[in-house]
Amino acid sequence: MLTPSLERLIAELSRLPGIGPRSAQRLAFHLLKGPRDRPVALAEALVQMAERLRPCSRCFSFAEDELCPICADPRRDTSLLCVVEEPSAILPIERTHEYRGTYHVLGGALSPIDGVDPDDLRIDELVRRVDAEGVTEVVLATNPTMTGEATALYLADLLRGRVRLTRLASGLPVGADLEHADELTLGRALLGRREL
Amino acid sequence: MLTPSLERLIAELSRLPGIGPRSAQRLAFHLLKGPRDRPVALAEALVQMAERLRPCSRCFSFAEDELCPICADPRRDTSLLCVVEEPSAILPIERTHEYRGTYHVLGGALSPIDGVDPDDLRIDELVRRVDAEGVTEVVLATNPTMTGEATALYLADLLRGRVRLTRLASGLPVGADLEHADELTLGRALLGRREL
Repeated sequence: MLTPSLERLIAELSRLPGIGPRSAQRLAFHLLKGPRDRPVALAEALVQMAERLRPCSRCFSFAEDELCPICADPRRDTSLLCVVEEPSAILPIERTHEYRGTYHVLGGALSPIDGVDPDDLRIDELVRRVDAEGVTEVVLATNPTMTGEATALYLADLLRGRVRLTRLASGLPVGADLEHADELTLGRALLGRREL
Repeated sequence: MLTPSLERLIAELSRLPGIGPRSAQRLAFHLLKGPRDRPVALAEALVQMAERLRPCSRCFSFAEDELCPICADPRRDTSLLCVVEEPSAILPIERTHEYRGTYHVLGGALSPIDGVDPDDLRIDELVRRVDAEGVTEVVLATNPTMTGEATALYLADLLRGRVRLTRLASGLPVGADLEHADELTLGRALLGRREL
């Protein structure tokens, strides 16, 4: 009852995360109601992104040139290096405006169960950067999950003695109330309590 | 901090309904993590859809040829005509497998406040079809909203005497309980009660 091109578009949209068949239909019909240059503009953006993006040769985030915009920025403090699992973690950190160092994207977290060993992550590259770039502090900003914590501990063992090692604080989200905090987060918040 | 092509893609994705800047980022990063043929396949589907789809010359739903797949299907009963506001209403009706007639897409609902008059909808075309195609019943399936009801009443006045006129039943959704039904729906369900 749908035309072939409409069915194909709905199938492609359904493959996106968090978009089920109903949402995909809604998006497709929305794109059909507007001017035809809208879906074409989205298509061009997709193709351009697929063609132009490649890993930054220094930090392995997304770049269009040899270096990503952050690594190419001479105002960034290269003595401070923040280690993240994926490029998607960089944006929320940048949004805080509290960080002026550079980044290193591991490409995941250690997870023996899933077959992710140190060799699968960009750990050799991290060690080389720490040695070569005059890094004085490494902020271990892997996710506060089992695998992220394990990865942070592994990297801390590896780099201990060479640089200052820090980890993002765990605790209560700003604006949250105690009543709704999960016990793990509340436990971390207690352990990490600060003098006032 | 993002590359230009990534920012452009996020901007285009953010223009879709129900997708805010955060969701758009998440979708963009998801597309970047997978193989590069995924975003390109989505782009091709968008372009193909934009290039190929046009209104069906008979019912004004989406078509790739002169007629949409439903109007082109000789097994459909052309004496039964279902009037909907938008093409997106056809799919849920088709999914019921309870309807074997054809459709007519008005292109909206009457709404003097929004400046939508009878001339703005495909009402002349509907009347011509009723006369020309041997239609014996028109199912007025505009939405159960203020404007949809007004449109159904307007069309009923226009077509009365020429064909049998029906309207989709209003009432309780299947599986719903009375406790949570809104009073308008419950009122309709009472008024439309059937003999058992």
